[in-house]
Amino acid sequence: MRTIDWRADRIVLIDQTRLPGELTYLEISSVDDLVDAVRRLAVRGAPALGVAGALGVALAARTLDGDPDAVRTAAATLRSARPTAVNLAWGVDRALRHLHRGPDAILAEALDVLAEDVRCCRELSLRGADWLVQTVGRPVTVQTHCNAGALACVEWGTALGVVRALHEQDSLGHVYASETRPLLQGARLTAWELARLGAPHTLVVDSAAATVLARRLARAVVVGADRITANGDVINKVGTYPLALAAAQAGAPVLVAAPESTIDLATPTGQDVEIEIRDGTEIVSGSGPRTAPAGTETLNFAFDVTPAALVAAIVTERRIILPSAGGRPDEPQP
Amino acid sequence: MRTIDWRADRIVLIDQTRLPGELTYLEISSVDDLVDAVRRLAVRGAPALGVAGALGVALAARTLDGDPDAVRTAAATLRSARPTAVNLAWGVDRALRHLHRGPDAILAEALDVLAEDVRCCRELSLRGADWLVQTVGRPVTVQTHCNAGALACVEWGTALGVVRALHEQDSLGHVYASETRPLLQGARLTAWELARLGAPHTLVVDSAAATVLARRLARAVVVGADRITANGDVINKVGTYPLALAAAQAGAPVLVAAPESTIDLATPTGQDVEIEIRDGTEIVSGSGPRTAPAGTETLNFAFDVTPAALVAAIVTERRIILPSAGGRPDEPQP
Repeated sequence: MRTIDWRADRIVLIDQTRLPGELTYLEISSVDDLVDAVRRLAVRGAPALGVAGALGVALAARTLDGDPDAVRTAAATLRSARPTAVNLAWGVDRALRHLHRGPDAILAEALDVLAEDVRCCRELSLRGADWLVQTVGRPVTVQTHCNAGALACVEWGTALGVVRALHEQDSLGHVYASETRPLLQGARLTAWELARLGAPHTLVVDSAAATVLARRLARAVVVGADRITANGDVINKVGTYPLALAAAQAGAPVLVAAPESTIDLATPTGQDVEIEIRDGTEIVSGSGPRTAPAGTETLNFAFDVTPAALVAAIVTERRIILPSAGGRPDEPQP
Repeated sequence: MRTIDWRADRIVLIDQTRLPGELTYLEISSVDDLVDAVRRLAVRGAPALGVAGALGVALAARTLDGDPDAVRTAAATLRSARPTAVNLAWGVDRALRHLHRGPDAILAEALDVLAEDVRCCRELSLRGADWLVQTVGRPVTVQTHCNAGALACVEWGTALGVVRALHEQDSLGHVYASETRPLLQGARLTAWELARLGAPHTLVVDSAAATVLARRLARAVVVGADRITANGDVINKVGTYPLALAAAQAGAPVLVAAPESTIDLATPTGQDVEIEIRDGTEIVSGSGPRTAPAGTETLNFAFDVTPAALVAAIVTERRIILPSAGGRPDEPQP
């Protein structure tokens, strides 16, 4: 299963808005349709959006007869479909750099972006699985949060990539997944992926994860990251920080699985990152009937900051960084 | 506004299943109707259920012409309407003890139970408000969890009673309420009560409360309790424990507001309390459309245990206990 792919001159992607109810693929043959898919979150997750951006430029180049101005206009529209998604812009820009070399060169670059994602996720997943087996012993039981799975990437996930590697090595005990309010990526997407993998799993509400750790039902936490700052602070889905606090209290290590492209050496610490605040309708009416009185004020942080001191390890496709032991992403590997 | 009351030989109670959409009162003139109301959670909250139990016996005595056997049978049915709600049984038993003295004596006792709840909540609320003003200074900003408000009691709440007292003294800055998955008592009930009080408030998802504290938007946590053990451990709605961890990290004190009847001296620590595990349908389909794939296994802890070391103060109608400073509920007051 690939979340996003290129087949017969079209972008083929899983419509994530239909999950977990149905697995439907969209075949996209115009940039307008891709922009629509990105806006309504049919495709989401930082790595997957990077691939969508690059493939979108390739699609534009092929369908617009290679007219450079038309391709640039289409790329700009795509680039701004989700203005806060840096990976989308990164993917668009990476493909666009080959505009002068023609449609085939652009497509080759976009397919490179796609192949790199598969390779990076696979490598960091194997490294993360090894680290967990060595650190907490087999069988490994973990608590995860949000969806850092194949659906956020191309084929292997990051945090769920580690889970998949453990499962394939017969080293996985059990996965506890938190539902991840307000948008329920854990309940909708992670539970669906784990069922497809055949990995034993249990869904809990976000605030029950602390009890899962306190009772030693899960012996480690594994999550993805949206950004990692130079000092090792981790910006990830809101709820990661209290989960890391509960893990520290229970003596359970927190493993962050993310590609090198997530590491932002230009930003010193998590305190320097502006946290996106999303619309409150996601809280009060995102999952069905309205839950709070009309007019209730909301504050909807999309992410939170987990201090480096609470992060045992960050695994990437190249290395392992140990922030709680003083390791920093901005220091050269020994 | 009273959550539950006695008027013209009937029990009058707010139908909480209709909130926050509509404020509807049920007029209950038979024990069968009361049992139904209790079972479908039209009335909930430990103190309110105690009052319902006592008033239910009074209603039985009046409607069954004082026939002791008939009253005992009705009381037994009511007592078991929610077998895990100890307060319900406590209220039933307290009224039933006056069976030999006739319907008027039973009603007088039931009205005493009701009046005591109002008085206890009011006293502990004022004491809690004073403690917060002295500890964190005015204006007091707080994070609360679940609903420990008037709707869980008769007229004043416990945690929200403290908020009301602060508000009436013009000492309240702002209240952050977490939505409280899976049953959303924070979004549905607490937001509704705060709006009625005119208290400024903001709703967040449960896992965002840690960020509210980390950013010093709230300087203290105030919650109720379902049980407090002899050593000062607090059993409360799941999510209280990770909230207390985040509060400790932010240097924000945790205040637990509860009547003396919540203190269970017979149980040494929170580890000795069996935590109720409720049906997982509350997680996957409790608030509307199904959120997880069919067949997803769940684990639905109703409560969690907050260790005494994380609790700055417990206020009751009689005293203040300071568990994190070594104070214990089972020690006599100085």
